[in-house]
Amino acid sequence: MTEEKPGPLIIIGGNEDKDGDRAILKEVVGRLGEGRLIIATVASHQPEGYFETYQEAFGALGVTDLVELYVNERSETFDGSMNDKLMRAAGIFFTGGDQLRISSQIGDTPIERLVRDIHARGGVIAGTSAGASVMSGTMLVKGSSAESHRIGDLHMAPGLGLMPDAIIDQHFAERGRIGRLLGAVAQNPRVLGIGIDENTAIVVENGQFHVIGSGAVTVIDGAGMTHSNIAEAEPDRPLSMHDVKLHVLCCTDRFELASRRPF
Amino acid sequence: MTEEKPGPLIIIGGNEDKDGDRAILKEVVGRLGEGRLIIATVASHQPEGYFETYQEAFGALGVTDLVELYVNERSETFDGSMNDKLMRAAGIFFTGGDQLRISSQIGDTPIERLVRDIHARGGVIAGTSAGASVMSGTMLVKGSSAESHRIGDLHMAPGLGLMPDAIIDQHFAERGRIGRLLGAVAQNPRVLGIGIDENTAIVVENGQFHVIGSGAVTVIDGAGMTHSNIAEAEPDRPLSMHDVKLHVLCCTDRFELASRRPF
Repeated sequence: MTEEKPGPLIIIGGNEDKDGDRAILKEVVGRLGEGRLIIATVASHQPEGYFETYQEAFGALGVTDLVELYVNERSETFDGSMNDKLMRAAGIFFTGGDQLRISSQIGDTPIERLVRDIHARGGVIAGTSAGASVMSGTMLVKGSSAESHRIGDLHMAPGLGLMPDAIIDQHFAERGRIGRLLGAVAQNPRVLGIGIDENTAIVVENGQFHVIGSGAVTVIDGAGMTHSNIAEAEPDRPLSMHDVKLHVLCCTDRFELASRRPF
Repeated sequence: MTEEKPGPLIIIGGNEDKDGDRAILKEVVGRLGEGRLIIATVASHQPEGYFETYQEAFGALGVTDLVELYVNERSETFDGSMNDKLMRAAGIFFTGGDQLRISSQIGDTPIERLVRDIHARGGVIAGTSAGASVMSGTMLVKGSSAESHRIGDLHMAPGLGLMPDAIIDQHFAERGRIGRLLGAVAQNPRVLGIGIDENTAIVVENGQFHVIGSGAVTVIDGAGMTHSNIAEAEPDRPLSMHDVKLHVLCCTDRFELASRRPF
């Protein structure tokens, strides 16, 4: 790893192909070189089996130096005993589960700082499902799926913030989550809403991202929003939001983050 | 019925409340006066029970002159034997099922002309679910729900066209249908995409609509679209679409159709 620029983020909408052409996992492997990949299963309350599944999938792609990172209790991260495996890593992959478990177990611990170090020295930071959501500055934790979004339905929390000005949502088309992502953007249009379908990912680097995988990525830009009812008193009110810009991106699309423009 | 202006369209996203406060059915009743309401169950392949359900729901709201319209075979509509009940109607309510059954059984028959007459002389035309879709000029018949929308997934057909420049979709949030409605709008942004959640309706009159019921209505305006891949060769490609305008409307919102503006 000789670059001094930050490495890529590979942010996956969940349910990525693990035994077919593995296009998304291949992208992760392509960014690793020969280096070690950490599989962080910390999002899961019961991580048994997660590591083995990824071991098999990444093993088939030639990755041999794979190490699991799991945190039973936040206090385990304090004594530095986990640091060594992270310091030698070329990348880290956050598996699915509960994004709040990632943030509460490793937020503001030596582990988090080492994750940032990997990113800063050019390593790849990947995450799927909960591991995708946690990339956000303020992350979605809970909200309506497949129903009319209610103003009061949304639960958010501070994420790891590797993509600070975005709110990432996952399993996006599959679980009908446009309503809650619109609701999140309505709360503060400073953040760009990014909804990623299953077996689909964005690869973020150099202030841009491009889309890989079989599905679509929905981008919600609330900058031009002329009205919303999000600050109204009644939490069971449906959302109202006027003049939102939306992009649906796939395979060949790239998006520039600063200008908020696809190209 | 003394007005000469067309009556309202009440277009419902399915699953409207039939035994609670019945807000949407009340709106229908409010537009009927004392007149007859036709329950058109023609969307259903097996209509048994549909009429009875609505008879009970509308009966509880004081509607006494309720008549079922069902068409087993298109040829039944030709001899005029069904005309009498329609000529005396103040409104018609299309129940759910298959929108293609409505259009294929009554399209270009005396029944369709009588429906237009009811509308033209100020009567109310309501439809839920399939009965909502069929209001479109070109209607959605089949497409992906709750998955990444593929270019080739969409099936459309000529609708009754009471709202000719719109494509209506229903069960919208509940079934995760934003992808297919975006896909429909991409095919020709001349049409406005209108996605209606369950137990939610738009009341269209005087070139405007307003929203009633408990959910939201999503409006997709593709006029400013700068790019789409909809005309590409491969039907299993996910959709790509740049610069779409989206509005989420609820309870207090009104929308002007000519200017495509909420207010």
